[in-house]
Amino acid sequence: MTIIGVGLIGGSLGLAAKQAKAVGSVVGYGRRRGALHKAVSLNAIDRYCMSLSKAVECADLVVLATPVGTYEKFLSMITPYLKEGAIVSDVGSVKGALVETLSKLTPPHAHFVGAHPIAGREKSGVLAATGTLFRGCSTIVTPTEQTDPNALERVSALWEKLGAKVRTLDPFEHDRILAAVSHLPHLLAYALMETLHHPRIAPLDPVQYSAGGLRDFTRIAGSSAEMWRDIFLQNKDALIETIDAYQESVEAIKKKIMSEDGDGLIEIFEGAKAIRKKVLES
Amino acid sequence: MTIIGVGLIGGSLGLAAKQAKAVGSVVGYGRRRGALHKAVSLNAIDRYCMSLSKAVECADLVVLATPVGTYEKFLSMITPYLKEGAIVSDVGSVKGALVETLSKLTPPHAHFVGAHPIAGREKSGVLAATGTLFRGCSTIVTPTEQTDPNALERVSALWEKLGAKVRTLDPFEHDRILAAVSHLPHLLAYALMETLHHPRIAPLDPVQYSAGGLRDFTRIAGSSAEMWRDIFLQNKDALIETIDAYQESVEAIKKKIMSEDGDGLIEIFEGAKAIRKKVLES
Repeated sequence: MTIIGVGLIGGSLGLAAKQAKAVGSVVGYGRRRGALHKAVSLNAIDRYCMSLSKAVECADLVVLATPVGTYEKFLSMITPYLKEGAIVSDVGSVKGALVETLSKLTPPHAHFVGAHPIAGREKSGVLAATGTLFRGCSTIVTPTEQTDPNALERVSALWEKLGAKVRTLDPFEHDRILAAVSHLPHLLAYALMETLHHPRIAPLDPVQYSAGGLRDFTRIAGSSAEMWRDIFLQNKDALIETIDAYQESVEAIKKKIMSEDGDGLIEIFEGAKAIRKKVLES
Repeated sequence: MTIIGVGLIGGSLGLAAKQAKAVGSVVGYGRRRGALHKAVSLNAIDRYCMSLSKAVECADLVVLATPVGTYEKFLSMITPYLKEGAIVSDVGSVKGALVETLSKLTPPHAHFVGAHPIAGREKSGVLAATGTLFRGCSTIVTPTEQTDPNALERVSALWEKLGAKVRTLDPFEHDRILAAVSHLPHLLAYALMETLHHPRIAPLDPVQYSAGGLRDFTRIAGSSAEMWRDIFLQNKDALIETIDAYQESVEAIKKKIMSEDGDGLIEIFEGAKAIRKKVLES
């Protein structure tokens, strides 16, 4: 297996796959020698390769684990070197049109399978990688009508061996769901931080009085900026639709406050408790 | 000391004050005998009293620790029974006009001092109370020109003994700051949960794919609904102003996504990191 991009997710994939003996040797490709060297010493990869062609030419399975905005570029670069029957997969938080694009880019002698392990930490980089990151998490695979069933089976089996619960979704449905449960929450947290810079708020220097409420939100702000830029841009359509629904919810709550509708607020809070219960059970 | 309302905050205040030997005996008032009985067995109060007059008639210090929407009612009910020189304080998350109202309601032979320990947990009720809840947290006192300096000193000294860092703010400035760092974050979390009930989102059943992003937010939904209803309604003006600033921030991010302004997004994410750093240092 070759991992393109040995950061938090790529590094954790290597660590977990090696621990589970789920693959043969693990090769890492990246741009920074220091980080790759670190990945070897952490046992996340067996060896690294700073030449893309050499990194992929012997691989049965190549996993794209760079920010999603770079997948197209990397796949274009590696196609000439993919061996017969090679499988290309990914770990991206966006699927939809991207899966279509990557499937089309994959040469006829290879197979593309979209996958997304729903796992992450507030830290990024290979130093934050752990071999248990995917244990108990959901990994969504997003086959299309063109997806090779054997390749799909191979990718699913790998994630299952790493302890993930593998589930199948249509690529576009995946994006709408992730917009709601992951991309929107991140966007809200960023918007909250941005509000604290607002000219009407910042002069109060509120941050020095930060309470638990704010602390929970700032955790998200520790994530990789490049990764989230790519996710927001790649999942533009589903995310905008979700933001609009969210803005309606904020306006609805605002109206209840303005009209002092206490019972209406309680109703919303009880609805939130129901969601919490479902999340804790999921 | 008499505590009106022995829930998470009232119970923790009793526990901490008794552990620090900061006050004489601690009397608890409440409506539910079972909870009061529990509070005694947890050592949060020395004894309970279900008659308001009897609960306060011997107290040097009476602390209101019910939802903020009930302070006015409770203070009106206890004024005839307050002894000469008694201090009335509170633990409410809203100050502003409420401090004015409560100060005016306090009879001339007693003193009102507004206080707000910025502490909380995702659980409510006396079973969640701990004697260390206020250690290292900020407690804001909100004196006005009419506040008796000795009473202010007494209340400040109590919170310091419990390990809190006591800080002074104008009651209205307090409300604007708390709207930004606490009330708005809670509102956003509730709005997010409400979005998951949105007719365009709910059919996807997204919650079963919940990621870390969503989990962080649902913690907030475990808080007391009555408490948050009262906070939102009592801090209406500052909160609406803050919601408007926030909606502008969401719109700004939305625009950057729509115009595919990746650098603009990165700028926002970096700003968020700066806030995170400040929060972690505060």
